[in-house]
Amino acid sequence: MKKLINDPKNVVTEAVAGFAAAHPDLVRVSEDPLFIVRQDAPVAGKVGIVSGGGSGHEPLHGGFVGPGMLHAAVPGPVFTSPTPDPILAATKAVDGGAGVLHIVKNYTGDVLNFETAADLAAADGVEVRSVVVNDDVAVKDSLYTAGRRGVAGTVLVEKIAGAAAERGDSLDQVAAIAERVIGQVRSMGVALTPSVVPHAGEPSFTLEDDEIEIGIGIHGEPGRERIKLEPADAIADRMLEPIVQDLPFASGDKVLLMVNGMGGTPQVELYILFRRAAESLAEQGIDVERSLVGNFTTSLEMQGASITVLKLDDEMAALWDAPVNTAALRWGM
Amino acid sequence: MKKLINDPKNVVTEAVAGFAAAHPDLVRVSEDPLFIVRQDAPVAGKVGIVSGGGSGHEPLHGGFVGPGMLHAAVPGPVFTSPTPDPILAATKAVDGGAGVLHIVKNYTGDVLNFETAADLAAADGVEVRSVVVNDDVAVKDSLYTAGRRGVAGTVLVEKIAGAAAERGDSLDQVAAIAERVIGQVRSMGVALTPSVVPHAGEPSFTLEDDEIEIGIGIHGEPGRERIKLEPADAIADRMLEPIVQDLPFASGDKVLLMVNGMGGTPQVELYILFRRAAESLAEQGIDVERSLVGNFTTSLEMQGASITVLKLDDEMAALWDAPVNTAALRWGM
Repeated sequence: MKKLINDPKNVVTEAVAGFAAAHPDLVRVSEDPLFIVRQDAPVAGKVGIVSGGGSGHEPLHGGFVGPGMLHAAVPGPVFTSPTPDPILAATKAVDGGAGVLHIVKNYTGDVLNFETAADLAAADGVEVRSVVVNDDVAVKDSLYTAGRRGVAGTVLVEKIAGAAAERGDSLDQVAAIAERVIGQVRSMGVALTPSVVPHAGEPSFTLEDDEIEIGIGIHGEPGRERIKLEPADAIADRMLEPIVQDLPFASGDKVLLMVNGMGGTPQVELYILFRRAAESLAEQGIDVERSLVGNFTTSLEMQGASITVLKLDDEMAALWDAPVNTAALRWGM
Repeated sequence: MKKLINDPKNVVTEAVAGFAAAHPDLVRVSEDPLFIVRQDAPVAGKVGIVSGGGSGHEPLHGGFVGPGMLHAAVPGPVFTSPTPDPILAATKAVDGGAGVLHIVKNYTGDVLNFETAADLAAADGVEVRSVVVNDDVAVKDSLYTAGRRGVAGTVLVEKIAGAAAERGDSLDQVAAIAERVIGQVRSMGVALTPSVVPHAGEPSFTLEDDEIEIGIGIHGEPGRERIKLEPADAIADRMLEPIVQDLPFASGDKVLLMVNGMGGTPQVELYILFRRAAESLAEQGIDVERSLVGNFTTSLEMQGASITVLKLDDEMAALWDAPVNTAALRWGM
């Protein structure tokens, strides 16, 4: 294992400390319990939004804390859910009196721990609503999941719900728009190489030199199939087809197309995938109105990528375009 | 070689096509000769700024084309300088009557080809000035370089010069501020793994499983030394010390600290490096006033990172903060 780390035990706390040092204008950090919170939280009268989950997927979620997006992020150990304690503390820290929305990726640990934290927060008088993101069309149940996994579509949920909270929507309204995004977003991934969890020290799975895994999870969980390496265009088609069929997306739809890197894939490859995915959608009469390309929901140093398609309506597009100021997504501010 | 590509010959053209498809609001692309240009170029009465070089370092340079930064970027083949033709065409395309600045990384091919293009442009009546970035303190002469190499500091030169052009500075003034940044910026890198050039199909060098290379170039050129893997804090110190000694940076200085990923390194590792570098600078009385962490000047899928320090004055800081709207760097717009 070759990594730019100190003690594997301290990867998350040191990375979070570095993040806080790099972005003092945006965030502050609670060290114990560990969470990242907007510098100006709580924002009086506005819905607070909290997300979180295992570390190793950066910039998800800490990179999306700031005006117009998340109010707090709760990083667990690498690929491991945070416990209820820091989720509860983060929830209280962002409660500006209008309630708090939890955006949870659909993994059993996350769902349980966010639920427990929500119950405890409610007992303390904080109104909490939760939405569960499950955009990955690759598999129904998985290693850590009942139902579909939540992957890169989470970023779109966080951005759009964050913008709704920022404009002053009520908790019900913010939860409703988050649910609408979840209902219309679909993703699928591919891995070329595994990632190495620091405290494990070994690759989480193995692939032959000419083999790739279609439908990989962001923790290296099994996908749909292992196949021989193919040209990028064929791989893009393999990922896009089940996405389009699932919703289904149809001719005349306006969409946001996201090509997300898993952490170890160069930008040229992401843009080559984007090129084919956009071309394929155009051939099907589906109009790419917005796009996002880069490393947003990663799996440490995994080489691979995912494609995400969100069916946009006018309100979602406007909320997507609204100003945002976070470490990883920033415009209009 | 496992990559998300089609024919290795088409990597650059397909990636640029994908880039254009993803960012139609920002850029358009000339396919032959190949260059990426601001959607609104030429901007009448303002200095145009052109950069470029071999591909494989994305988002450098295409990701920095847009209002407040570059007016055009000229991508050569992977790790190979573009020829004078596309540089000349890009130069003419961004000439709004106030002249054009070439920002060139110090590699022999780039320097020669930009020089030829500048001469041809001058013959066609376009006033051109050139600056050469040589921020890498690792080695004096290198595989493709007389003098120091230009690496991640280039991003800072492009941002600050771009902001000066945007506010309406003259060609002399834009060139002068670019030279001032070049005079005050220093960098050094480290590699854990090599990158694989698509048309070569094999790693550009080899490192043992427990070995890293200090002072690596962004094309995998030899650095200062190969050593056994160390804790991240020790590696950060090894890179930062020669940077600080070189300018030298001194107590009381205000700086921008950039930790740049080489393409294959997870964000947690970049922030762990940032944490130690910021701590070390603070110990030396050097004040980190601005920061930038992420993949900005890469070497395909190389695992590794670089540290860049820029001594800021008030004008540079204001130009750094000025609005920018590019694919890879965006704020205030």
